[in-house]
Amino acid sequence: MTTLSQLTPAELRQQIRNNQLIQPTAGMANGYAQANLAILPKQQAFDFLLFCQRNPKSCPLLDVTDVGSPVPKFAAPSGDIRTDIPKYRIYENGELVKEVTDITDYWTEDMVAFLIGCSFTFEHALLNNDIPVRHIEENCNVPMYKTNISCAEAGIFHGSTVVSMRPIPQQDVVRAAQVTSRFPAVHGGPVHIGDPAAIGIQDLHSPDFGDAVSIKEGEVPVFWACGVTPQAVAMATKPSIMITHAPGHMFITDIRDEKLGVL
Amino acid sequence: MTTLSQLTPAELRQQIRNNQLIQPTAGMANGYAQANLAILPKQQAFDFLLFCQRNPKSCPLLDVTDVGSPVPKFAAPSGDIRTDIPKYRIYENGELVKEVTDITDYWTEDMVAFLIGCSFTFEHALLNNDIPVRHIEENCNVPMYKTNISCAEAGIFHGSTVVSMRPIPQQDVVRAAQVTSRFPAVHGGPVHIGDPAAIGIQDLHSPDFGDAVSIKEGEVPVFWACGVTPQAVAMATKPSIMITHAPGHMFITDIRDEKLGVL
Repeated sequence: MTTLSQLTPAELRQQIRNNQLIQPTAGMANGYAQANLAILPKQQAFDFLLFCQRNPKSCPLLDVTDVGSPVPKFAAPSGDIRTDIPKYRIYENGELVKEVTDITDYWTEDMVAFLIGCSFTFEHALLNNDIPVRHIEENCNVPMYKTNISCAEAGIFHGSTVVSMRPIPQQDVVRAAQVTSRFPAVHGGPVHIGDPAAIGIQDLHSPDFGDAVSIKEGEVPVFWACGVTPQAVAMATKPSIMITHAPGHMFITDIRDEKLGVL
Repeated sequence: MTTLSQLTPAELRQQIRNNQLIQPTAGMANGYAQANLAILPKQQAFDFLLFCQRNPKSCPLLDVTDVGSPVPKFAAPSGDIRTDIPKYRIYENGELVKEVTDITDYWTEDMVAFLIGCSFTFEHALLNNDIPVRHIEENCNVPMYKTNISCAEAGIFHGSTVVSMRPIPQQDVVRAAQVTSRFPAVHGGPVHIGDPAAIGIQDLHSPDFGDAVSIKEGEVPVFWACGVTPQAVAMATKPSIMITHAPGHMFITDIRDEKLGVL
């Protein structure tokens, strides 16, 4: 992974575009922000944009493309949203119908692409502060859970917040909240610290998405709003077509992680 | 003003709704955020929402109403956008045609109201840090200037950033940047410090909007993105109808200033 971590976002997008790199993007282009993708037709785009505006912790927007344009001109002016992600998922009427490595054939003139901040950025910040990130240590996906925290509705979109969980040593919990609060564009500070039941999670060992991780003596479960929320919410409304990245296969932007820090 | 500063937002909105209080809202409901208003038909709302998303310093959104609903349910659930502002401006095809104290007769089922953060919140924060705010001292409007800083375009909306200027004593400039950076929802940190010509301003004594203020020996002009930007940009596109607040006559929200601080 050493090489891929040192390539530029543009170099990596080129390899991905040529189908030379079909794999999860964690660890690539170290220091640059990666993004979740959701593509919807214009007809649903106002409601979805409003949903993101009202739910900035779960749906922080890094970029929204012009209607019909595949270029995320703020996050990656040389990028193409149709080709630069290693693996996409096509949903029709809320059902996953296909995984593909290129969506050029599915792209239409009325589509809008939403790039949503991803927790990789704040995980780097935690690691730089000597705060452990368990699922990285255990080389698996972050555990994610459905909660009873309602999202603010917007038009046709409504649902509950999905959170990710990281076990944090008791003495690092405040620092973890401070460090991640600097990055509202990638979910920001935690939404909950401690008792899982308080936000409707029954069993930490059975995540709804991703993998369970070990929680050690003296560690506190800390919960952050998760980028799976907007996809889950959007899919629940069963739009005729919706395209997303495949889990872990993110869009690599030209935005330096540190430029997303608010202070 | 002592009494009005101590009334709650709901009490003040009720008086305004009854046309008992037709005056600028500066100094009312101390500690609560006030907001700029822009109302557009649904047809232009997606582009305008996208414009705000792409230009968060000049257009920080505090709330966006559901299509056709006059209730800003996040910023003031008991409020009514049609009646709770002391004075409105009606623009038709980009021309100011009327000032009214109630827009119920103009409201249609396809309208969307945008409440945009106002600098009153960060001015209180500056004052609480013993940093002087000149236009408050001189009891006039803040000076505002057109600049050569382009906004990011979105659909039909494009234009340049309007900034407000506050002269800050040299030794307080860094603290002023820090204090206002805490409040991205009300324009956040400065967009420029020092030389006006660098952002296309020819003469600080001739503001494009508001009033000139004195700049004392040892003070540096500091510029913040201004809530006049979205109105100016929207009006330049000459929508068939657009409704705004009249300058200084803001919407008083239930949001405590301090809850807008990111850290």
